[in-house]
Amino acid sequence: MPPESRVDVLIVGAGPAGIMCANALAMAGTDVRIIDKRPIKVAAGQADGIQPRTIEVLQSYGLAERLIREGTRCTRVCAFYNPGRDGRIECTGRVPDVTAPTARYPFEITLHQGAIEAIFLDSMKEHGLQVERPRQPVEIQISEDVDELSSPSSYPVKVTVERLDAIDEESKTEIIHAKFVVGADGAHSWIRKALGIVMEGEQTDYIWGVLDTVPETNFPDIRNRTVIHSENGSCMVIPREGDTVRLYIQLSDKDVVDPLTGRVDKNKMSPQKLLSVSKKIFQPYNWPTRKGSSGGQSTSSGSVLHLVIPSRDRVFIAGDACHTHSPKAGQGMNASMNDTHNLAWKLSQVLRGWTSPSLLKTYEHERRKYAQDLINFDKEFASLFSGKPRTAENEDGVSHEEFLRAFQTFGGFTSGTGVHYLPSAIVDPKHQQCAEKLVIGQRMLPQIFVRAADIRPMELQDLLPSDVRFKVLLFPGYLTKARVGELGLLAEELSKPSSFLKKYSHDGNVSTVFDIITIAAGSKEDINYLHVPQFFRPHWTKVLLDDTDVTGSKGGHGYERFGIDPKQITLVVVRTGWICGDHRSLDRHWRLGQLFRFILAPSRWSGFLISWWCMVDDRSAQGYLVRSCRKV
Amino acid sequence: MPPESRVDVLIVGAGPAGIMCANALAMAGTDVRIIDKRPIKVAAGQADGIQPRTIEVLQSYGLAERLIREGTRCTRVCAFYNPGRDGRIECTGRVPDVTAPTARYPFEITLHQGAIEAIFLDSMKEHGLQVERPRQPVEIQISEDVDELSSPSSYPVKVTVERLDAIDEESKTEIIHAKFVVGADGAHSWIRKALGIVMEGEQTDYIWGVLDTVPETNFPDIRNRTVIHSENGSCMVIPREGDTVRLYIQLSDKDVVDPLTGRVDKNKMSPQKLLSVSKKIFQPYNWPTRKGSSGGQSTSSGSVLHLVIPSRDRVFIAGDACHTHSPKAGQGMNASMNDTHNLAWKLSQVLRGWTSPSLLKTYEHERRKYAQDLINFDKEFASLFSGKPRTAENEDGVSHEEFLRAFQTFGGFTSGTGVHYLPSAIVDPKHQQCAEKLVIGQRMLPQIFVRAADIRPMELQDLLPSDVRFKVLLFPGYLTKARVGELGLLAEELSKPSSFLKKYSHDGNVSTVFDIITIAAGSKEDINYLHVPQFFRPHWTKVLLDDTDVTGSKGGHGYERFGIDPKQITLVVVRTGWICGDHRSLDRHWRLGQLFRFILAPSRWSGFLISWWCMVDDRSAQGYLVRSCRKV
Repeated sequence: MPPESRVDVLIVGAGPAGIMCANALAMAGTDVRIIDKRPIKVAAGQADGIQPRTIEVLQSYGLAERLIREGTRCTRVCAFYNPGRDGRIECTGRVPDVTAPTARYPFEITLHQGAIEAIFLDSMKEHGLQVERPRQPVEIQISEDVDELSSPSSYPVKVTVERLDAIDEESKTEIIHAKFVVGADGAHSWIRKALGIVMEGEQTDYIWGVLDTVPETNFPDIRNRTVIHSENGSCMVIPREGDTVRLYIQLSDKDVVDPLTGRVDKNKMSPQKLLSVSKKIFQPYNWPTRKGSSGGQSTSSGSVLHLVIPSRDRVFIAGDACHTHSPKAGQGMNASMNDTHNLAWKLSQVLRGWTSPSLLKTYEHERRKYAQDLINFDKEFASLFSGKPRTAENEDGVSHEEFLRAFQTFGGFTSGTGVHYLPSAIVDPKHQQCAEKLVIGQRMLPQIFVRAADIRPMELQDLLPSDVRFKVLLFPGYLTKARVGELGLLAEELSKPSSFLKKYSHDGNVSTVFDIITIAAGSKEDINYLHVPQFFRPHWTKVLLDDTDVTGSKGGHGYERFGIDPKQITLVVVRTGWICGDHRSLDRHWRLGQLFRFILAPSRWSGFLISWWCMVDDRSAQGYLVRSCRKV
Repeated sequence: MPPESRVDVLIVGAGPAGIMCANALAMAGTDVRIIDKRPIKVAAGQADGIQPRTIEVLQSYGLAERLIREGTRCTRVCAFYNPGRDGRIECTGRVPDVTAPTARYPFEITLHQGAIEAIFLDSMKEHGLQVERPRQPVEIQISEDVDELSSPSSYPVKVTVERLDAIDEESKTEIIHAKFVVGADGAHSWIRKALGIVMEGEQTDYIWGVLDTVPETNFPDIRNRTVIHSENGSCMVIPREGDTVRLYIQLSDKDVVDPLTGRVDKNKMSPQKLLSVSKKIFQPYNWPTRKGSSGGQSTSSGSVLHLVIPSRDRVFIAGDACHTHSPKAGQGMNASMNDTHNLAWKLSQVLRGWTSPSLLKTYEHERRKYAQDLINFDKEFASLFSGKPRTAENEDGVSHEEFLRAFQTFGGFTSGTGVHYLPSAIVDPKHQQCAEKLVIGQRMLPQIFVRAADIRPMELQDLLPSDVRFKVLLFPGYLTKARVGELGLLAEELSKPSSFLKKYSHDGNVSTVFDIITIAAGSKEDINYLHVPQFFRPHWTKVLLDDTDVTGSKGGHGYERFGIDPKQITLVVVRTGWICGDHRSLDRHWRLGQLFRFILAPSRWSGFLISWWCMVDDRSAQGYLVRSCRKV
């Protein structure tokens, strides 16, 4: 009999989706294991750009600093080249990419996949988790017992796992009973196939080659993200680590398709072939790679497969296992990581018994919408990108203006800062007017405030780490004597056992589940942070001030930027949306309590199935939902 | 016979001065050993503030990031408290400390000494160097043989070192023959005494206690640097790591002086005693420490000893071994580190044979002046700080305005950004007008430029690491067609074997000794960095542009800020001052060469003694001297 074991969460696959999930769960102290069939981690691998919003997400786990240090910044300048009168390319414009004006990090990071994964693996190790490899699942069974499925303490998923490096039959197989399984096992996902999940999607016809090279060239935008539409095909330049540059090169059927089979023949995409195609595209610029032509390193087919896959109540699919798309917009790794960033905190909340398990349904709801948006974007972008340029002879071609417009329209989406979950049962923009510029359904805006006790500038996002807790931001306005009195009354109310903060804290300690931060209006010359009632000031670091720092160069205008009226008291909750009342409105606690009743289980695990509609009020992906109101 | 060995540099003492020296030498690949008599490193120890300029210095070794992460920022707000009408203290003002407007890091870092030292020890380890301990010198002899002293390959200093943990006589003693010895062995320096160096100085009468505590108080400025003048004595508040606060508390003779001996009795300075004194000072604010009164951790005598000590040609004294002073301005660790930061690169240059050994004489010249300034400052500041406050009854007391004026006057000095080596044989401000705002004798200003190839914002200081090389900054102005032509001619000239850049590179490779960086005027929309001649563009990362980044929020106005005319070609050299000619002036190379001839040995080690006056042109402490000119 093979050995049997139990674990709360079993993750299959240690690619970007898998390690983001594993690290988040390990940091949350959740019981988790992760297996991968590859004997060692990717040494280099395909690189992807890490987009501005994904950097913010990594920062919420404390991982952005290393990423930024090790990677190359693409400063979101984009240069465009199109055919000139002589048919050879010339610069049509160099445009600062201002389509993500709210980005905390106004750049992308390019870094090879091995280095990015190392950041996560090191962090996991610090939290006591390592990838078990080479192991792969060979059988998966989900219990059909309704009682078992609805019990929080049951392990209804049975996965048989094989060690690929086992030296004897005895140690080869292990049976793992899991509460939840995450299938992050890539585009050819075994989990997906084993569950018989059907793909939806289509394949596009564009074929792309990828070439990493150290160029020696007189092309002046070789260190900028550059889009070239030439009469010899299209090309995108992405600067990478050190002196390396990545090129996405459009290929024609005759370049790579085997005329006998009609299929792409990967053997035809040698580095030399790609180099020779790119040389034609770059004319009139010279294009020798440094030290001859040894630059070509990797190629990949650009065939595109689009699919969106539903997950199941106990088994979730994430990353490439549920959607693939073309690499040119640099979304691949970002989409995968943000899938499990969305999923992991929900799993932790449910496993801690803080939240009803139906919260997990929001994972599919949110990420399916995103994947669909991504695929739509990809389709349109790929078509514009691959289209012939507009020239005197070809008036139907893609003009520079047309491409630029699309590029800028999609900028918010590609940067990740504009990702927006639309109104639904769990995104209720009813009270949007209370903080007009904190768009409900989007991520929390970065903003520098100063810490009231020591006037140190602090980025608000750094106070909203991915630590599973709900963040309650109190904006009390100016700390006038009258306002301080009102805050005292509010604190008194919220300290009562009947208050939602107390009721849903389980252990009676508010800070276990809720992180309260107070952001006052006022000036650093005369603020006294001790005037904020202790209840809203659990530690001296938790009181911020909407003013500039001592150099006058950082911070200030936060209320204005968020659209919050300093004459009111406003509550904003990050990571879960809710409605809060003005402190003077009698029914505020009823409403607050009402909403939290749906989100949080008042006692540990109140039963597995709460129907979909009453769970609808939580849908934020670690800061993706912000909702506030007053005067309800 | 005890074993004998040789080393280029032997450092005695692993305090702040010793480890700064050891790390700098290890990073430069210099043959170095460091010994310390303590069996283990300081676990916690007295903290000092790391001042803004010292953070810049640490950054030049790549160490500031960790320091900032681990330490506490004091954001250079200063609050002042003085007696009110009722005799109890009240806030007189809260003043942003704007006396260091050019600081790259507009804050101090407080962190306990053990943690600061760990940053250096880890870096040393990465470069293959560890402190040997517990070991102490017992005998030192300097050869009196003139030939030996003047030979670069000789080891004229013989140090007998004892292992304090030796288990037998045989392994107890080692004889180390060194080219140079650095005595960084503290206020009671054995090296200093062994060489019979006489102290100059005086002792002041102010007695201070130091208390580290975790307070629970309603004093609103407990997390700010605060100066309190009360009728019960003076006190300075320095926020530290976590919730800890350090208090410097003025004590009266009756508090601590033993009436029998007339000496300070350290036993009288218990934490309880200090707490009780501070309670009186803080009235009317309450002052219980958290969890009772367990906060008191350490005390120290504030007796102040002032001394300045000359070093010798082969043996140098640094840090507390050559100057001590009162702790209140937080200069101690900064002064020590900047001593050996000044010394280490000179040692490396001389040992590499790049520079004449007489360069080392500038160490004493520069640091003696600084130590004298520090002591003068300390004396005046201590007297104002310890003086009774001015009140209705005591009109001779120190007024708030008087103290504030002194505080602000000395701000540039205490921050380190204003440290200024005055005109002398080696500081020649003759050509100051070529870059009016880069003050000759001060450190290089921080300034953000964008990298021309990829419009990434770069802090100029980050391109000037402490890597022993001379930094040659070329400011070519706008890259017009005419200017590009002129640059071509200049590059041609400087590429000739007779050019100083070639002549002093020893191996013919300019970049071994000189790091060339080009900073053009122009706009990111139309710059083509490839127009800069290859000679001034050894790598694509070496061309900067004086423009804002893509967000428009960083960079720009560098020429204006430095006082450089973009219509001219200007050369600025950091780490060594020199005169460079406008490219059109015929005698520029003569002058350039003339000056470098004095600084750099054209062949390896041209003889030990070059007289003082002809070496005078190098005196920068890793960026402390900047000089440029045109039209000479």
